[in-house]
Amino acid sequence: MTVHVPNGYRMAGGHYGIKNNPKMEDLALIVSDVPAVAAGVYTTNLVKAAPVVLDQSRTPSDDVRAVVANSGNANACTGERGVDDAAEMARAAAASCGAAPGNALVLSTGIIGEFLPMEKIKSGINDLSTRLGNDDASLVAAARGLMTTDTVHKIAFRTLAFSGENIQITGMAKGAAMIGPNMATMLGLIMTDASIDKEDAQKLLRTSVEDSFNCISVDGHTSTNDTVLLLANGAAGQKRLSGAELSAFGGMLDNICQELAMAIPADGEGATHLIVIEITGAKDKESARKIAKTVADSPLVKTAIAGADPNWGRIVSAVGYAGVPLEPSGISLVLNGISIYEKGSPVEFDAQVASDLIRDNRETVVQIKLSEGDAAARFWTSDLTAEYVRLNADYHT
Amino acid sequence: MTVHVPNGYRMAGGHYGIKNNPKMEDLALIVSDVPAVAAGVYTTNLVKAAPVVLDQSRTPSDDVRAVVANSGNANACTGERGVDDAAEMARAAAASCGAAPGNALVLSTGIIGEFLPMEKIKSGINDLSTRLGNDDASLVAAARGLMTTDTVHKIAFRTLAFSGENIQITGMAKGAAMIGPNMATMLGLIMTDASIDKEDAQKLLRTSVEDSFNCISVDGHTSTNDTVLLLANGAAGQKRLSGAELSAFGGMLDNICQELAMAIPADGEGATHLIVIEITGAKDKESARKIAKTVADSPLVKTAIAGADPNWGRIVSAVGYAGVPLEPSGISLVLNGISIYEKGSPVEFDAQVASDLIRDNRETVVQIKLSEGDAAARFWTSDLTAEYVRLNADYHT
Repeated sequence: MTVHVPNGYRMAGGHYGIKNNPKMEDLALIVSDVPAVAAGVYTTNLVKAAPVVLDQSRTPSDDVRAVVANSGNANACTGERGVDDAAEMARAAAASCGAAPGNALVLSTGIIGEFLPMEKIKSGINDLSTRLGNDDASLVAAARGLMTTDTVHKIAFRTLAFSGENIQITGMAKGAAMIGPNMATMLGLIMTDASIDKEDAQKLLRTSVEDSFNCISVDGHTSTNDTVLLLANGAAGQKRLSGAELSAFGGMLDNICQELAMAIPADGEGATHLIVIEITGAKDKESARKIAKTVADSPLVKTAIAGADPNWGRIVSAVGYAGVPLEPSGISLVLNGISIYEKGSPVEFDAQVASDLIRDNRETVVQIKLSEGDAAARFWTSDLTAEYVRLNADYHT
Repeated sequence: MTVHVPNGYRMAGGHYGIKNNPKMEDLALIVSDVPAVAAGVYTTNLVKAAPVVLDQSRTPSDDVRAVVANSGNANACTGERGVDDAAEMARAAAASCGAAPGNALVLSTGIIGEFLPMEKIKSGINDLSTRLGNDDASLVAAARGLMTTDTVHKIAFRTLAFSGENIQITGMAKGAAMIGPNMATMLGLIMTDASIDKEDAQKLLRTSVEDSFNCISVDGHTSTNDTVLLLANGAAGQKRLSGAELSAFGGMLDNICQELAMAIPADGEGATHLIVIEITGAKDKESARKIAKTVADSPLVKTAIAGADPNWGRIVSAVGYAGVPLEPSGISLVLNGISIYEKGSPVEFDAQVASDLIRDNRETVVQIKLSEGDAAARFWTSDLTAEYVRLNADYHT
């Protein structure tokens, strides 16, 4: 995969002692050489981490110069001191590139309820500011600075040509658990050198997130820190996008958000399967999403897939308790292309073939057809393995 | 524990080939020698198993003579044939004690989507009808006929004296997974020799279930088959209960339902902890329950307790995404008596002591105090272990 840093951005990532393991990056600094428009979409959790509160107060903006991200510590549930620390972290990032104190944003992820090690973070920002680069290695290092239990860094890249001139969009994300929709403990940062109005940026990002980061779950636990930021610095040198060009950009943004979002349950803690849940025939979009989420969050569905068990009763019964009124005799189910349940009655199928299809493929597709209307939704989740439990029983202590 | 069969009931349980393991009972027959009042509370899942549909159409009743229960097969998602099978099973049970075909109820639990082995069930009912007893061994055998992955049978017993005469209440229940509130794959059957009007019986059972079986979860997956039945046959020979006596009976019914309900997450598949979640200071009862359920269903909270990890950020963040409006700075948390989070800010505590308290005790008490009002709720759940995953990845195939 070819990935590049869009024009006008420089970045770096490294280890500064926030995490114990010296091989793991825990701090990233991303700088735009010119003021960038910035949009943000944030967790719906009422218990919001300090960096979320800070970024929410600063976006949309047309004057952001730096984003600083740390992993290993979420700066969540840390009261007033946490709020001060987030502001101080932003100040240090802004100062490192000569920007005004308010022109930086902050991303944090990791353990909840502990105070940030501010001396480490501030000296880390100073060090990173001397190592900023726009090469691919710098991009990877920055993306790795966001990781917690992720096993791989997550970067997506697109280009879009307008009148023979390219604009570039590069996104990075992290997330592997505490992932429920609206949103997950996922951090995302998308950078483009396109020129976009801040209100347009905010609107496009909100739309793109709706069908991507808000349609994934690993464990249904909505985090305190979820944030997706979009920076647009105009460094490609083109005029401000509008009309069809803006729409084309929006489509590309949808695309990149979906690629990054899917990468999260695909890397779900301990996961052996990416489960794609497709609902059709629902009364409305909200119902379709609610049903998809209920199936995605059922530990019984997730353990069945982990065990390559076509235990479809667990799927159908999850549809029934989603809290959405529907006619049970109108439910049909297709599992990896095999019709298993048709309008409320079981269909004979070869259980061994169905099991093999689950076991031998990394992706399992669950298609649920209802008879309520024509709304649809797609949702991505991971299976639930003993390894997930082991990872999460051991995470803290 | 002393348990007894109330007057006028006889029962038996045994293995008849519905389950593979010949050591496991899979069928139970309970007969009342005189017509009993019967009340029922059922799953809220829209995908209701055939026996649920049947029992719902027959309760409340004042003329039930028999209850037949099988484990190993849920008779759910089985279409028209399933409906016919449930009716046939009830007919066989009624015939075995000389009752009219409509005077029996059915309980089923087990795998979803397979047809009942009707020949085995009918010959099993015939055999059980020759072995009915009112001794404690018969009670235990019947209770064991309900079990699926339960490791222990669940029986509770109370007596209540009115003017020197005793009435008896005996309850049996099963459940260890597919347990979400409203209700769980739990079956419950409560028998009393008190004399109660059928409308009173229905009302009292509904109330008792609300704060017991509807306040437990193992995995948040609401089953297609959940049923709690109350039989009252009046065989104690007293007059119909009313006024203060009826209230006293209701209190005892609450008590017995709570004992049986708690026994389910305590026996949760692979569980090493019973987690008690107590919410106080909520705006209203519904909010309190919604928050308690959200905390109870978080895999991150459940794995933390399994790992004896006082990872309280997961608890506080679950409160925040419950979908209940509240002031985050009013949240306080006490874990096994240790104050950990006080009005939105962390409190210093000895993490080692907190961890030891979780590890060394089978029960963990999570107290969450809000500042919204004075409503409260209590909820029981189990922790999430690798063993749960192993059991559920292997259940079907």
